[in-house]
Formats: sequence, structure tokens, C-alpha cells
Amino acid sequence: MLGQMRVPTFADVERAAVAIAPHVRRTPLLRSPKLDAIAGAPVWLKTECLQVTGSFKARGAFNAMLALSPEQRARGVVAYSTGNHGQAIAWAAKTLGLQATVVMPVDAPKNKVQKATQQGAQVVHYDRRTQSREEIGMRLLEESGGTLVPPGDHPDVLAAQGTVALEALQDLPAEARANLGLFASPCGGGGLAAGCGLVIDALSPQTRQYAVEPAGFDDTVQSLAKGQRTPNAPGATTMSDALMAAIPAELPWEINHRFLSGALAVSDAEVRTAIRFALEELRLVVEPGGAVALAALLAGKLDLQGRDAVIVLSGGNIDTPLLRELLQDA
Amino acid sequence: MLGQMRVPTFADVERAAVAIAPHVRRTPLLRSPKLDAIAGAPVWLKTECLQVTGSFKARGAFNAMLALSPEQRARGVVAYSTGNHGQAIAWAAKTLGLQATVVMPVDAPKNKVQKATQQGAQVVHYDRRTQSREEIGMRLLEESGGTLVPPGDHPDVLAAQGTVALEALQDLPAEARANLGLFASPCGGGGLAAGCGLVIDALSPQTRQYAVEPAGFDDTVQSLAKGQRTPNAPGATTMSDALMAAIPAELPWEINHRFLSGALAVSDAEVRTAIRFALEELRLVVEPGGAVALAALLAGKLDLQGRDAVIVLSGGNIDTPLLRELLQDA
Repeated sequence: MLGQMRVPTFADVERAAVAIAPHVRRTPLLRSPKLDAIAGAPVWLKTECLQVTGSFKARGAFNAMLALSPEQRARGVVAYSTGNHGQAIAWAAKTLGLQATVVMPVDAPKNKVQKATQQGAQVVHYDRRTQSREEIGMRLLEESGGTLVPPGDHPDVLAAQGTVALEALQDLPAEARANLGLFASPCGGGGLAAGCGLVIDALSPQTRQYAVEPAGFDDTVQSLAKGQRTPNAPGATTMSDALMAAIPAELPWEINHRFLSGALAVSDAEVRTAIRFALEELRLVVEPGGAVALAALLAGKLDLQGRDAVIVLSGGNIDTPLLRELLQDA
Repeated sequence: MLGQMRVPTFADVERAAVAIAPHVRRTPLLRSPKLDAIAGAPVWLKTECLQVTGSFKARGAFNAMLALSPEQRARGVVAYSTGNHGQAIAWAAKTLGLQATVVMPVDAPKNKVQKATQQGAQVVHYDRRTQSREEIGMRLLEESGGTLVPPGDHPDVLAAQGTVALEALQDLPAEARANLGLFASPCGGGGLAAGCGLVIDALSPQTRQYAVEPAGFDDTVQSLAKGQRTPNAPGATTMSDALMAAIPAELPWEINHRFLSGALAVSDAEVRTAIRFALEELRLVVEPGGAVALAALLAGKLDLQGRDAVIVLSGGNIDTPLLRELLQDA
């Protein structure tokens, strides 16, 4: 499969930045005095929870659709997604005037399903345990003649996710950028980390890059240890629904295995602490999968060595019942 | 009292912007497709809930302290505050190396009291129903020889609050700025509205400016109707603890009665709806007093007439138990 896909480069990220600029938000890079004190170094939070559609996925969705020919646009797009990618596809399709069909698991958070349908997408459900989303997607593609936009395993999607790091580096003050020791982002299939890796390699090679995964879905941790793509053991559960990838996606892995300094996993309890910290100290709503890199920092699992760090908060689409439950832990 | 105070001008706001820039955040101006759809026009949210100390009050606190002489700085500052101003004073004092004493009601939100003390301020409590915070403040000033920094009735504080509008106007795209029909902000004593009024009068005089108050504390609504400063009827309660002013402060009123197009009040129920909207749609934590202008918009009480609007979200310091309670309404 990879043989057919071109591995994108930093130049693709730069082109994506120009292409998607009219459609996505340049999200703020925020600081918190309390977080700096905990980390013992300046921490810069890239707030993709404030992105349109509530996650960084909007970047890849727009870039992939903008690259389609008029004929391809007319036949629409298909996406399979645990939620954020589907929502981004729905929003980008609506904005650009395409028809979108989104394949979602039946247990996806209700708010994500609702938002996709509200934006005019057709949602097709499947059962995570008994059905393959890829097979359902392929059937839909055959029926419609449309184009599949995968969540990470696609050069245009991957390159656009790198604009998260590009904006962060551009928006850092000069001293902070010169002193940038660490860049950490959440990791599911690996598209966000890979896109950002292209940027860090090109512009800030002295910066250590880490991918953070939820416990039980630490396939990138395992894959880096074994030197090859390694699936998660089956049967695991996590509250980070956005990061439930079974195995690193092929194209991101081609980049991540070269550029990542490391990967690590955080527990649901550590994620809960991070979400509460974001609510109470940052005044931001962050979803579980969006909070794993912050969770790693708060849990003392990322050593900043006194240097500046960028932590990506990759999404904010959390269901209200879960938010309520998290606050009841207090 | 007003005779001793200079009414600040737009030039004072411009000077304040330069003075406080190293210490405060240029907060993002965010959009929400859903909010635009509800309002029927582009809405630009000035997110002071993301300001350092969690509210716009940091602006005035820094500007007032930066204006003190070395001798004044050495004797410290005193503030009376329902919370956000006190917290801003504590943070600014800590940052600039001054001693701060903050007079707070015993029923102030616990998170606000904690944050002030955590930042090294001395907190003196009083009973809202039986004691005068002004008297307590005066006694403390006599004892310490320090300087009182009031929350709004002070030229340096008022001018700095105007930087909220200055940044918003500067950060609006050119077309949106040319088409800006309305600017609405929360209103307690009136300092924020007055500072912003100086800016709107100078840079965007075609823009209608509204002050939004909580029901029961609509002293600016009453004062505009009667053409003079008018106190609230006693005994009212509101969840918007940051906006419980008894009467418009003198200096802000001098400006607000000239520049405001109007004022209006919102109910606690409307504020709850706005806080939930901010959590679920904007991924932002906004406190009740910070959400009243958004509440007015969502309740259909602000007619945008199809033109661009700036809505100020003035603070995000909400206690976790209240946030939990709000989510349980769902």
C-alpha cells in the first residue's frame, strides 16, 4: 500500500499552510504561570481544542479536499472516523460544497455524531468489535465513485497536520524558539506527530519530539521498541476515544520512526487530572485524547530539562456527561 | 470625589497598552460558526477568560501599579474586590515585587480567595451585609501608608481596561472592522465598558456600544434611564458574583453616560445557557459575570442588524462546584 503513497516533505507542509489558511484558525499559543511552575520551564500550549470543528483534524480535511479535481469533488468524499476526523470532513465538505459520507462506530461520542449530521454529512454506523470500517468504506466508495479521505494515511492529510507545528514555531518568541527543547503531541494513528515531525526536522532539529498515547493503545511505543509497526494487544479500553488506533498508520510511521525521540503512554487517571487542570487553570475544555500530552507533562513523564516546550492540546470534543463525571471526581 | 480624578482619554488607553504589554496576554478574538448562525451575523469573541489571572482585571492592575513611584511601590497596595480584581492585584504585585493586601467578602468564590493567597497577597475578609469594604480598605491604608487600587474608579485602571477594545479593533480583519455595528461587554461598576467606550468613540464611532448587567444589579440600566447614577434596590442576588456593584462607579459613569448606546440585563437562567454554550460549542470556561454579554446575544436581546459584533467574555474564574451544577442542569 505504501508503495502507492508519496511520503510528504516539509515543502508539502508549507504548501498546505497556504492552502488551508482561509478555512482554519491559527490557534493561540497559550501560557500558564502555574504550568510553567510545575514543569520548571516555559510551556507553550498549542490550543487545537479551539480549532474549527474542535480539533486539528480540520487542517487535513480541508487540505485533502482542496487537492481534489472538480470531477472528484462532484462525486464527494468518504471518511471513516472515531469522530474528530469525521466531524472535520463534514465541516470541510459543507464549506467547500461537497457531499460527505462518514463511517462512525456505533459507540462514538454522541456530540461528535450529532455535529457531523448537523453539518449535512451522511453518517453510516458500524460495530467496532464485529465489523471493519475499511470494508464499509470501500463498499461506499464503490457505490459512489467518491474519494476516500483517511484520517492520517494520506500525504495531503499528513502534511496539513504539520501546520500545527509550523504555526507554533512561527508564533514562538525568538528566544523561546531558539531554546525549544521538546515538542509533544497526542498520537493515535500518528498523522499529527508525523506532520509535526517534518516541521521540527526542518526548522528545529535540536528539539526532541515525543508522541503520547493512551495506555492500552501504545502501539507507537511498542513499534519504536521493536523497530517495526506493531499492533496493540486486543481488548484494551481507554477514555481517549480519539486515539484508539490498532496499529501505527503506514505513512505516518515512515516519518515517525525516523524523527521521534520517543513515545510514552499515560493512564486514564492521568488524563482525568489533565482535563481538570485545563478546565480549572487554563479555562479550556480539552477532550481525553486531546489532553494526553499535557497529562504526560503533569505526571512528570516529560523532562523539559529547563528548556522551552510546546505541548499540543489536539481537541476539545468531549461529551457533556463525561465532563460532568470528571468534575464529580473532585 | 470625582473632582480629584482626571477623566482619562483615548491617549491614556494607548499609553496603557504599551505599558502593560509585557505583562498581559493579547487574548484571542475567536469565532464560532454556530454562534454566527444564531446571531445572523459575524460575532467576534474577545476571550478575556484566557487572560492572565483569568479576567481582564489584570490589565488595570498592572497599569495602576506600573504608574506608582518607587516610594509608593515600597509601601504596597490595597484593593477591595469580589475576586477578580483582587486576584489581578495579587498577581501584578507578585510579578512587580510589591506587597498586596486584598479585602474580600467572606462569601467570595473559594478559588478566587485561594489564588490570591497562593500568589502571596494578604487577604482580609469582610461581611458584605454588615461591613463596608471601603472603610476596611481605608483603615488598612492608614496603617500601611499604601496605595488604594480600586477596581474601576481610577484613571489608570479604567484606561487599561480599554485595551480590551483596542486589541479587538486592531485584530479584526479590515472588512469586519469597517462593518462593526455593535460592541457589548459585561458591566459591574462600569470600568470595562468605560475604557472600551473611549476606544470605540475614538476609532469606531459608528459602532453601538452596550453594557450588559445581571438582573437585580442593573444599576447602569437604571442610571441611563434616569440620567444619573442610581443604586440597585437592596436585597438582590445573582450568580454573577463579579458584577455585584451597588451603583455605577463615578469615573466610569462620567464616560458611560456619554458613550453607551444602551444597557440591558440578563437573568441567571440566560447566563447558565451562555456558560453551557461556551463549554460545549466554544470549548471555553467562562464565569457567570464573564458570560452576561454572550447571554444577552443568545437570548436575542442584542440585535446585530446583520453587522459584525464584538462580544467580550470578560472572565473565566468559576468554582468547580458551580461548573458541576451547571452541567447537571443538562
